[in-house]
Amino acid sequence: MKEIDCREAARLLAGWDRVLILCHASPDGDTLGSAAALVRGLQALGKHAWVRCGDPVPEKYRFLFAGIPEEPEAFQHVVSVDVADPKLLGELEEPFARRTELAIDHHGTHVPFAQVRWVEPTSAACCELIFLLLEELGVEITGEMAGCLYTGIATDTGCFRFANTTPRTHFLAGRLMELGASAEALNRRLFETKTRAQVEAERRVLAELEVFGEGRCALARLPWSLRQETGAEEGDLEGIAGLPRQIEGVVLGITLKEKENGDVKVSVRANPPADAAAFCRQFGGGGHTGAAGCTFLQTPMETVAGQLRAAAEAYVRAVTGA
Amino acid sequence: MKEIDCREAARLLAGWDRVLILCHASPDGDTLGSAAALVRGLQALGKHAWVRCGDPVPEKYRFLFAGIPEEPEAFQHVVSVDVADPKLLGELEEPFARRTELAIDHHGTHVPFAQVRWVEPTSAACCELIFLLLEELGVEITGEMAGCLYTGIATDTGCFRFANTTPRTHFLAGRLMELGASAEALNRRLFETKTRAQVEAERRVLAELEVFGEGRCALARLPWSLRQETGAEEGDLEGIAGLPRQIEGVVLGITLKEKENGDVKVSVRANPPADAAAFCRQFGGGGHTGAAGCTFLQTPMETVAGQLRAAAEAYVRAVTGA
Repeated sequence: MKEIDCREAARLLAGWDRVLILCHASPDGDTLGSAAALVRGLQALGKHAWVRCGDPVPEKYRFLFAGIPEEPEAFQHVVSVDVADPKLLGELEEPFARRTELAIDHHGTHVPFAQVRWVEPTSAACCELIFLLLEELGVEITGEMAGCLYTGIATDTGCFRFANTTPRTHFLAGRLMELGASAEALNRRLFETKTRAQVEAERRVLAELEVFGEGRCALARLPWSLRQETGAEEGDLEGIAGLPRQIEGVVLGITLKEKENGDVKVSVRANPPADAAAFCRQFGGGGHTGAAGCTFLQTPMETVAGQLRAAAEAYVRAVTGA
Repeated sequence: MKEIDCREAARLLAGWDRVLILCHASPDGDTLGSAAALVRGLQALGKHAWVRCGDPVPEKYRFLFAGIPEEPEAFQHVVSVDVADPKLLGELEEPFARRTELAIDHHGTHVPFAQVRWVEPTSAACCELIFLLLEELGVEITGEMAGCLYTGIATDTGCFRFANTTPRTHFLAGRLMELGASAEALNRRLFETKTRAQVEAERRVLAELEVFGEGRCALARLPWSLRQETGAEEGDLEGIAGLPRQIEGVVLGITLKEKENGDVKVSVRANPPADAAAFCRQFGGGGHTGAAGCTFLQTPMETVAGQLRAAAEAYVRAVTGA
């Protein structure tokens, strides 16, 4: 399980054909954009390549895969993109985690599972790495590939707002626009457009948003019933995790999402000095400083809310020293 | 009233001292960021310079002027930044419009009023031009100046999301980060933080948002009473103009803001094929393709809503051809 760099990753891929690319479950724009750009790049080099994900690709991201064959045929090599932990492969963990030869990732919390890994935690998005990799491979980057890469960078940085954005992120984004990424149309699709169900869901969540811990914590609830009542789908609720932290003075914003099977998925967003990943680790979760998560299996949402409320108050007292 | 370029603008400023810089009224991040960066740049060259604006600087942007003397003393030259029309100087139009020697602007709709003007409509923000100007002047750009310039670029592009964003915008933003702009902290201040009054105001506006014209138009209302009831201030309501256009399928999003004196300020946001500036021109307003505005003097908000609703339906029918 050795660590390699961009050049070595490119050398490996240059020698391979029939490559299966794995995304993480509950896929986001970065894992999907990385996979879609890489599969297109490998195809441009005359290779066969396919993408698999343990969960369905959300409607919003399906455009990334236009023209890509869905069903992997006899593949010979397995690469994961943006997968920080074999567990995050979801359904694909069991059949593929041990067979993964190369993991490309940008998470500081990466748990090694592939034979070799190229992990750069200073990279804002896995798509930054895939861009560098395609260049190293000598791929002529098309407008479609540029759009896939831009998607991952824009979504993982909250459109260049989050702390992970570096000067390099902007330089790469500018070059992707030059290469044909339609930034405006992509951003409208990714950030600006809300379904009416989404607007209704946000309205209800805002109405019941709870601020506590002397105004430093906020908690939002998405009960399963809200989805039934508003018709909101998974993708409609994505942006809601950002709402609690937006309130002035809040350093720890928590969103609880009840799933159909009774599990509660917790999304945490933090502002300094709070650290979302550190907070989530006490509940077996993880992620980045600014955004992290954890899951409570089969627990009533009120129980989860109570536990997190107490933990959040104690945590912010500790980190703010007051 | 002749048109000049960056080099000529720099040559003029290099020969001047005691410069008064004018912002437009209802100031935003771009006019204020431009003025704050330029005043700091001129001071770094050993010159005296001051900033004036016809309206108070919103709380959110006051940090831009930390350490800048407020009261202009005997100035000898007048420069305007981001002022597309002398009327937009507000209270400063009468005393200063005719005395303006240099206008630096990026609006395609610029109405010439200064002796010379440097106008680049392909520039996403006036701050892009001020950055190039400071470099041309040989100013050593400090972290503070970089922060001012980043503020204008980020606010005028909706943090790199709007159609005016170009590859150059990203390249300049990356360089500003290298020069010390604290992008994350600025973005949190500019985009992420909402006061509790703002969250309450948004909640109420969402509850009454009106969608019409076969789902292609949306209209939001901010009656003066809402401000009294929620305690929301001017700055708390800025982001609301973006809400109506966010709904899937909406190409023309209209927000009406009632002022204390009974005027109604209209903000329009458009998605292609709709053009916000073209729509607002029929009411004597103007702006950009994606964002524009107009004002109805002393008119009841319901009357304005009725007129705009009819005009919007006719307009989207005309531009969408259906």
